[in-house]
This record gives sequence, C-alpha cells and structure tokens, in this order.
Amino acid sequence: MSPLDLNGALDTIAASFSGIRQAGARPLAIGGDHLVTLPILRGLTDRPLGLIHFDAHSDTYDAFFGNRYNHGTPFRRAVEEGLLDPKRMVQIGIRGSISSAANYDFARAAGIRLVFIEEVMERGIDSVMAEARSIVGNAATYVSFDIDVVDPSFAPGTGTPEIGGITTHQAQKMIRSLSGLDIAGADLVEVSPPLDPSGLTALTGATLLFELLCAMVGA
Amino acid sequence: MSPLDLNGALDTIAASFSGIRQAGARPLAIGGDHLVTLPILRGLTDRPLGLIHFDAHSDTYDAFFGNRYNHGTPFRRAVEEGLLDPKRMVQIGIRGSISSAANYDFARAAGIRLVFIEEVMERGIDSVMAEARSIVGNAATYVSFDIDVVDPSFAPGTGTPEIGGITTHQAQKMIRSLSGLDIAGADLVEVSPPLDPSGLTALTGATLLFELLCAMVGA
Amino acid sequence: MSPLDLNGALDTIAASFSGIRQAGARPLAIGGDHLVTLPILRGLTDRPLGLIHFDAHSDTYDAFFGNRYNHGTPFRRAVEEGLLDPKRMVQIGIRGSISSAANYDFARAAGIRLVFIEEVMERGIDSVMAEARSIVGNAATYVSFDIDVVDPSFAPGTGTPEIGGITTHQAQKMIRSLSGLDIAGADLVEVSPPLDPSGLTALTGATLLFELLCAMVGA
Amino acid sequence: MSPLDLNGALDTIAASFSGIRQAGARPLAIGGDHLVTLPILRGLTDRPLGLIHFDAHSDTYDAFFGNRYNHGTPFRRAVEEGLLDPKRMVQIGIRGSISSAANYDFARAAGIRLVFIEEVMERGIDSVMAEARSIVGNAATYVSFDIDVVDPSFAPGTGTPEIGGITTHQAQKMIRSLSGLDIAGADLVEVSPPLDPSGLTALTGATLLFELLCAMVGA
Amino acid sequence: MSPLDLNGALDTIAASFSGIRQAGARPLAIGGDHLVTLPILRGLTDRPLGLIHFDAHSDTYDAFFGNRYNHGTPFRRAVEEGLLDPKRMVQIGIRGSISSAANYDFARAAGIRLVFIEEVMERGIDSVMAEARSIVGNAATYVSFDIDVVDPSFAPGTGTPEIGGITTHQAQKMIRSLSGLDIAGADLVEVSPPLDPSGLTALTGATLLFELLCAMVGA
Amino acid sequence: MSPLDLNGALDTIAASFSGIRQAGARPLAIGGDHLVTLPILRGLTDRPLGLIHFDAHSDTYDAFFGNRYNHGTPFRRAVEEGLLDPKRMVQIGIRGSISSAANYDFARAAGIRLVFIEEVMERGIDSVMAEARSIVGNAATYVSFDIDVVDPSFAPGTGTPEIGGITTHQAQKMIRSLSGLDIAGADLVEVSPPLDPSGLTALTGATLLFELLCAMVGA
Repeated sequence: MSPLDLNGALDTIAASFSGIRQAGARPLAIGGDHLVTLPILRGLTDRPLGLIHFDAHSDTYDAFFGNRYNHGTPFRRAVEEGLLDPKRMVQIGIRGSISSAANYDFARAAGIRLVFIEEVMERGIDSVMAEARSIVGNAATYVSFDIDVVDPSFAPGTGTPEIGGITTHQAQKMIRSLSGLDIAGADLVEVSPPLDPSGLTALTGATLLFELLCAMVGA
Repeated sequence: MSPLDLNGALDTIAASFSGIRQAGARPLAIGGDHLVTLPILRGLTDRPLGLIHFDAHSDTYDAFFGNRYNHGTPFRRAVEEGLLDPKRMVQIGIRGSISSAANYDFARAAGIRLVFIEEVMERGIDSVMAEARSIVGNAATYVSFDIDVVDPSFAPGTGTPEIGGITTHQAQKMIRSLSGLDIAGADLVEVSPPLDPSGLTALTGATLLFELLCAMVGA
Repeated sequence: MSPLDLNGALDTIAASFSGIRQAGARPLAIGGDHLVTLPILRGLTDRPLGLIHFDAHSDTYDAFFGNRYNHGTPFRRAVEEGLLDPKRMVQIGIRGSISSAANYDFARAAGIRLVFIEEVMERGIDSVMAEARSIVGNAATYVSFDIDVVDPSFAPGTGTPEIGGITTHQAQKMIRSLSGLDIAGADLVEVSPPLDPSGLTALTGATLLFELLCAMVGA
Repeated sequence: MSPLDLNGALDTIAASFSGIRQAGARPLAIGGDHLVTLPILRGLTDRPLGLIHFDAHSDTYDAFFGNRYNHGTPFRRAVEEGLLDPKRMVQIGIRGSISSAANYDFARAAGIRLVFIEEVMERGIDSVMAEARSIVGNAATYVSFDIDVVDPSFAPGTGTPEIGGITTHQAQKMIRSLSGLDIAGADLVEVSPPLDPSGLTALTGATLLFELLCAMVGA
Repeated sequence: MSPLDLNGALDTIAASFSGIRQAGARPLAIGGDHLVTLPILRGLTDRPLGLIHFDAHSDTYDAFFGNRYNHGTPFRRAVEEGLLDPKRMVQIGIRGSISSAANYDFARAAGIRLVFIEEVMERGIDSVMAEARSIVGNAATYVSFDIDVVDPSFAPGTGTPEIGGITTHQAQKMIRSLSGLDIAGADLVEVSPPLDPSGLTALTGATLLFELLCAMVGA
Repeated sequence: MSPLDLNGALDTIAASFSGIRQAGARPLAIGGDHLVTLPILRGLTDRPLGLIHFDAHSDTYDAFFGNRYNHGTPFRRAVEEGLLDPKRMVQIGIRGSISSAANYDFARAAGIRLVFIEEVMERGIDSVMAEARSIVGNAATYVSFDIDVVDPSFAPGTGTPEIGGITTHQAQKMIRSLSGLDIAGADLVEVSPPLDPSGLTALTGATLLFELLCAMVGA
C-alpha cells in the first residue's frame, strides 16, 4: 500500500484499529497529522462517541486548501459520518490569529462546545474540565490531544504553532482530570520531529502520552 | 545614505515617518534597535505624546557606553526633545540583574510611572493595564513594545534577554486592553533573527504585531 | 588527581571547601553533577545542617544504577553521614514520570518534607516558602538548587528534564524569600552546556546564581 | 486550486511555464519537490530536450511508494511523455546506500548516461563536464540541479541527504562549464527550510542559482 | 549489573561478544566510548588479531587522566593483553593539536604503523590502503572506525573533534578497500547524539556502518 | 572609553599594540571585525610591512556603505597610511558572488597580488604559498587570517560567508608554510559566536590560532 495513496492509507489505518477493538483493547495512538483521528474513529466505533479535544484549532473546516480530507477537517467528517456525537463534544484551547470567525460556524451550529483559550485562562483548569466531564458524561468517549494546544515555548516542533497556549503543567492537570471517564481510545498528534531539533517537543509529547495512559486506566 | 551614519539614519527615518503622518496614516513599525523609536517620534509629532512602553529595561540612560544615542537612551532623549510627556508615560515589565538602582533616577524624577515585573505579577494584567490607560488618558499616545518584556522562553532571539518575564498570553491580554485609546503609532522592536535559530521569536513578534494592529483600529 | 577517580575527586572537593570554611567564607558553588553537593557538605560542616533543596527529583536513592555515589544518591548519603538533619530538610518541586512511589520512602521515613510540584502550584510560592523557612528555622542551612526544578522551556540544557516545572519568575521569588536565613553555603547544579545549544539554560543559571548571592548576603 | 490536488497543481505549473515560454523568456525555477521539473518541462517544450541533471538520485523509478507522480519518478515520466530525449540525457553525482541496482535499469535501457559519484571523483570535473557537453550538444537543453548532489556538510537541509557528495567548489565549477550551451531553462530543487535551521543550505542554493543564471546568459 | 561499574561492564560486554563468536558469527558493533573495543576483542579472540584503525587519535596512552581503562587507552591494553599483534596494526588519520609527541612513543616502540593525516592527504587513499592491507595480510583482522577520523564538518557530534580530517567520500573509499580481508569483527564508535543536534553525524555513522557491513561480506 | 566611539576605539587598540611592540613581543590577535587589523598595524609599525592575507574578500573598498572605516576598507587605509607595502602584499582565497569587478581595481592598481579561489584550487597550496613567501620575502610581514576564507561548512559562524572556500586541512597547510618568515604579528578575525550555535567555528578558529602561533615561532 502506498503511503501517498490517501484513501488507501485511511482504509489501512481503520482496519488496523478495528482489529484492536475486536481484540478487546483500547488504543493510545501517536500522530502524525491530525487526519489520523478520522480513520481511528472509523475502526473504533459504530455508534457516535463523545469527544474531549485539546487543540489550538477546531479542525472542522468543510474543506481546507480545497480538499475535504486533511488535518483541517477530521472532526467535521467524523460528525458527518456519525462517528462522533456533536452534543457530547468539547474543544479546549482554541485560538490563533489565522482563523476567521466563520471557522467556528459548523461547530456552533452542530452544538459542539468551543472553549477558547481566554476562557481556559480566566476560569482555570478545574472549572473547564468539570464542564468537559459533564458534557461527555458516562458514555464512551474519545480523547484527542493536538500538541499545539500547548504553548510553543514547551512544544515548538509542530506544523501550526500558535502563541499564548497552555503550560505543560496545565496540560498534565487537564489530562489527569479525565481519569474515571469511559475512554474508548485516545491519541496525541502533530509532533513533528523535523521541526523539533531541541527534542523538547518529543519530551513533552512522551510525558503527556504517559499521562493519557494513566488516565485511560483510571490511575 | 550610509546605514553606518547615525545622524543620517535618524534623519532619514524621521523624514519617512513624517511622510506617513502627512498622509494621514498611523504607523506600525518593526525594529531593530530600540533607538528607532526616537526618529519615529520626531517624524510623528510636534507636541508631547503619551507613551505605553512594554520592556524589561527603562531605556532612559543619559548615555550608554559613553554614547547618548543608542538603544539605552531613546526615551530620555524623547522627553528632553519634548516628543513625550513624562506625566503621561508608563513603562511596564521592568526588571533585570544588570541594572543598578540609579538607572531609574531619571524616570522617577521626571514622573514616569515604572511598573516593575514583580508588580505586574502581583496585581495582574487587568489592574496594571487599567492604571496604564488612566495615565495616558484620552490624548494621543504612542505604544512601544520591546520583545524582551516577554520571557526568553517565548522570545529568545533578542540582544539583552532577561529571565522572569511575562508570557505571550499575558502580552496578548496587555495589547488587547489598549483598544479604544488614541494610538498615534506603535512599534515592536528588538527581534534579532541571528539570535533566533528556532524562529520562535519571529512567530511571537509577528503575532503580537497582529494584536497591535487590531488594537490600533479598535478591534 | 584523576577526574575519573570518584573517591579522589570527592576528597579533593571536600578539602577545597574545607579551606573556604576555614577562611571564614561561605561558598556559592556551581555544578556539574548533583553528587558535588555531598563533598561540599563534607568540607563545610561537622554538624548537621538544614537544607532547602529545589529539584524535580528527591535524589535520595540508596543506590542508582547499582552505585551508591552518584547524582541519584547525594542527599541520602549526606543524611547517613550526619551532614544534614532530616528534620530540617525540605525538597521543593518534586515530580517526574520516571520515579516510582518507592523512591520517596527514605525521605518520608527520615522525616524530610517533600513538596511535590502540584502542591507548589496549588498553594503558591509565598505559602510554600513560609513553611520552608519555618522548617529550617534560624540555624545554619544549606541551599541546593538543581536547575531541573525549573521547567525545561526555561532551562532545557540538563540531563534529566521533567515537564511541568516552575517558571523562572517563580524561581526568583523562591530564592528571594531565603533572604535573612543563616545560609552556610549554596550551589546551583546540573546545567549541562552540551545540552544547551541555545544558551538559555546558561542565562537562567547565571541569573539565579545572582539571586542566590543576593539572598546569602541578605539583600 | 488546491495545493493538495496533484493533477491540478501539475496543470497550473505547466500553464505558468508555458506563459513564460510564449513571452520568449527562459525560466530559472526554484523547488521544492523534484516532481516540479515534470510540469515545467510540459510547459516549456513540445519536442524532446537534452538534459544535464545533477543529483544523488536518478529519479527514474516507474513508481515510488506505489505512486507514479512524485519526486522519485519525474525523469521517467518526462522521457515517456517525449519531453526529454534519453540519448541526450546525462545524470551526474549518482550515489546512495538506499538504492538497489535495479533502480538504474530504466536509465540504462533508455540510453541515459549515468555518471556515478566515484567516476566524478576519479576523472575530475573538467573531464566529466566535457563529456556532458558533448552528450547534449548544441541543441536545446534543460538543466536540473538537485541540491542533494552536494554533500550534506554543505547542504544539510534536504529530504534525502546522501554522504560522499561533491563540494560547493566542484558544484560551481560544474555549473560554470555549462556556459555557452543552449539552455532552454533550469531549476534548483529540494532545498527544505524546515531541515535547514543553520541556513547554510539556503546560502548554498542561492549562490548556485546565481551561478546558473550566469551560465544561462553565457557569462 | 550497574552501567557505572567499569569492570562489570567490561565483563558483560566481553561475555556477550564471546557468545557471538561461539555462534560462528562476526560482530559489527556500535559505540559509544572507544573503550568498548577492548572488551569486544576480549570476547572475540584468544590469539593476536591484526588491526586497521581509523581515528584522529592513537588511543595508546598508558593512562589518561590517571586512569588505565578509558577511551584514551584501549589499544595499548589490547596489545598488552595479547589481543592485538602490534606488527599487524595500522592507525590511519592521526592528528590533533592537543597531543604531545610523546603520545606516539608506545605505538612506535611496539611497531604499530602510524599514518598521520598529512600522509593520507599526500599519498592518497589508494596508496595508504594498499599498505594497510599488506600490513594486516591474510590473517584475521579487526577493524575499528572512530567517527572523529572524519572531519567535524561531516561528523560534528563526537567528544574530541579535530579539524583537518578526511571527507566522507574518502572514508567510503577506505572502507571499500577492506573488501576481501579476513575481517573478524568491526566497530564504529564515538558518535555522540547529544552533540549532534543536526543529525548529520548519525547519517554519516549509519552510512559508514553500511559500508563496513558490505566490506565484511566481500561485497 | 565608549566601545561605540569608533575613533576612540581605534586609538585605544593602537596604543595597546604599541605597548606590546615596545615590550619586544609580537602579537597574535583575535577578532572581531576585520577593521581591528588597521589599529593593530598602526600600533605595531612605523614602516611598511609585507602582508599575507587569507580572506574571501579583498577588503580594499574606499568606502563601504558610505563609510571609510569599517570591515570593508582596512587594507586600503593601511596602504594609504604607509603601514603596508602594496608590492609586498598578497591576498589569498578571494571569491564571492556579491563583489563587482571594480572591487579589485585598487588592489590591482597598487600592485597587490590577488589570488582568487579558482587559482588556489588549480595550482594547489604548495605552489601558491611558495609564491606568497617570495612576495613578502625576508622582511617583516604581518599575517591576517579572516575565518571566511575557510568554507562555511567548516566555519559557518561568520558575518559574510561565501561558499566554495578552502578546507581546514588546506588552511592548516597554508599556515604551516609560513614558518620561517619574519612575522611581526598576526590575527584571526571574523569569528562570530552568535552565528555559531554548533561551536564548530570556534573549534576551527582556535585550532588555526594554534597553527599561527607555531608558525610565528618557527615550529
């Protein structure tokens, strides 16, 4: 299978995660491009999951650069395909000077809860995460962590960094608050080694994966 | 004109900004050495402006390395030349282990409000910026943002970094609070590409310029 | 003397610091590996000192990699040798995903106060440092500052970085609060130039050494 | 037009270079991925051109990662489409531990002259370039310079670096020897800024573009 | 076994390579510190081997920093232990401003052939390697390649870089000339990732390991 | 004295080197900007010296950026001031795409021997240096080594790097050939630490200073 064949790659990934699900296991995946979340969800579920999504960007474009399947569109596609339940979705840490107001229209219309970075900083982690837990409730939920939600001083090695992000201490606190939820799977994406000569982003990503793993087993 | 001819360079810059003023426009300038603010002010005004100045350093030496016109002296020269009104001046984020107490004598004697970093962190951005707005009032005001007010973890590429600075989130909040003031012009200075191999300082500087632009048009 | 001869090196360092003590001076040392604190204490005192220890790690293993004298063990050796009084010891900023719970058994059994990073962030610097001051009291106290207590975004150049650390502003505040204590000596350790191509860790370390110096003379 | 739409991008590029040709000008293009040479040739010519191709790789796969249009295939496609005349093609500097012997079958069967790096080093630049000039003769010829023909010590910022390459002095000498040929167009490709934090590859690429420009005008 | 226990580590490594030998295989090892060659030889042979040694340094001190077992001494220890036959040893690429003339006394007295970098550059690779092949002859020979024989522009990530070294093209040619010898084992050592932020040394090392592998099987 | 006061700095440097001369010593200086050679010569001599000058640039502009005293002009000023004898001057390694042909007019008119990089590479080090020795003869001679004569792959940390330069091995050979000349003083200039994050330029500069020192004492 060619890694340059988009649909083929999506199918291969979906099949792989379907196998993990059939084995009775829950995946913790590592990206790569955020589009990877879409085939993971295809393989992982046949009914809409909840979503707790940490990111600087909503990733709910209809098309990005004229294309409907890339790192700007996965969560819109997942809603359209019935893989996610927009009423049980929350996106935390949204910001960035390159997004227009219209970028948030789909999320708002669909009922997705958008928590902009200003709200995170004003209310604090405890309050925001309590609301996030109540949005997804006790049903099966997927967790997607885009490394660019963290400030680029802690994680410079990513494709679309945005200043004014959360600290790693805040990220740890957010992930720890997920413990006890019914987490069907999780991923940490958008770490880009060629943009990370210092290795700090790798350290941040690896440590947050450890935190995600602990949260998934209720530690 | 030789870039190594100090007085010639100052005159050229002043003439250029005078042209901007005569065209009825307001400039948003990018440095470079903080001395650039002096000729900008010369070109921009013939009566004393107010000043909101974000910086780790007061830049009000009489002479620095025996020289009266360089990046350690612009705000003293501007007061002496009647370009700034010291009673309507506030300097925010001041700190650093290499300054002696005497460095602040001119500012204090002239009535310039010095807000040291400790006070910023104790009182918070909202309180400090409310006072800054009241100091400059409704009259015409210049905004000068030295990138070294931001902590070097967010902006390492600058000539005189000082640890213990503000975050980019705090910087964004400070700049946004300027919206509605009568801003006659603004600059963001001291980004030094040779000291910025990672490019993070460029990202920080460019995003803060966007915030300054928004503040200048009241967005 | 061979720098590869562990015991010889420990003896040489201890003798050197004994000389400083006999000269009536108090040392401010720079590391290097945290094991250096052990021979400094041997040279500096013949009765148990108090300790304020800033670090991401407790460094109280009995043996690390099968070896009893290295950067994982100095504070246990120092207690065993009667150089430190565990009842007057506090370790601040402890964290890290690679430590097991058992790592803290010695410290807890000996009565050393462990302040984990979560407690630092919850209570704030003022509260934590007030307690630290009361633990060491008015008697002679050593201060050991491992640069890895600071978050790696501010100090990446160190051997065992751990995300989620304190800011340099918090570090400055902590050190300043030591002013007035009876400080018998201090060190700042674990700055590693080969891991610091940007030089930011050197800047952070040098500025914090300045703060330690000020605290030692009550400035 | 979406940059993610491969065929659309190829058409857009071809149309742009067709316009340059119709204006009676000759292009000097900058990449980017080596596939860009294919649409440039489509726009530039309707009869087979000669080719002098500097590269560590032959780029004549039938398919690379299962895909027929990417940076591993442009020169095979160009021969198949009648854009290049294989009898008037020479590839200089070929090497690399990741290529199998079969990679060169197409070139050999088609009559393309392959000059491996060992031959370049043994015979010297003058001899190799005299042969290259005789291969392309006096008819219209395209020049394609992949930066990875240069050793990675001079040009580290590229996607598939191969050790044991030519020096920049040798590259300058090679390009200067092209003066006087009938050069229909040229490109310099595969400089990758994210892989070039030091900027040395940019310096090398820019200076070699200057040399190409001089050669195109017979300077 | 503690990695900090020198003798224990030497024994463990020797036992591991003894196992490889007993399995009828020949090892291609990767360092790490050049001392690793000593226990490899201990495990690999019970009669003196020949040696072709590429290095900027002779590594035949009696003691380095007062210690007899470290990266400055392995080849003297190996001769003393009867693991290498000094009459069948050649060291190629020797240079460096920090060595005194006395450093070469042991090698000269023992009959080891020292080929300084100046001789390599004057005579050329073919001539030097023909002599090297004749020195070791047809009997079993070990090949040790210290990455610092290569110039630091090609391999900066090493502990004791010395300017004026060979190119990677020359290194490839040297290694290829070993094909057909009776190679009992080989290593490539002194690549240091913390000193290699660009990754160029890793690329150089990995490609030269590939060349060593080819030479070991006569390719 | 202010470091920003050009004439003051020139006078201070000249006086310092005059003192070295009066003490009967010969200086080996380290730059910094190549203008430093001018005041060194002023302090060092009162009759015209010979010059062996290694550089990518001739540095004989009448004025550079409209200024007569900076790193583009020192050797013209020194000839005009009678500090250097143009008939006994040779400049080796000259190259660069940013110089116009007119840049060499002064040198040619004055009788300075210009050896361009192409001639160095064609004739080889031995031949070029034999001529250089004969040009300066047995009389007192100054040696100035601009690090940018070395290729930027070996010395990237300099202000005006030019590709296609000499190797460090060639530089060592050139400097060693100076042994036996009557060297009145020497310098190595234009190493710029902020442009040298890897430290390779510092290593190259320091080792070449060692070679210069050896040549000055005839070693």
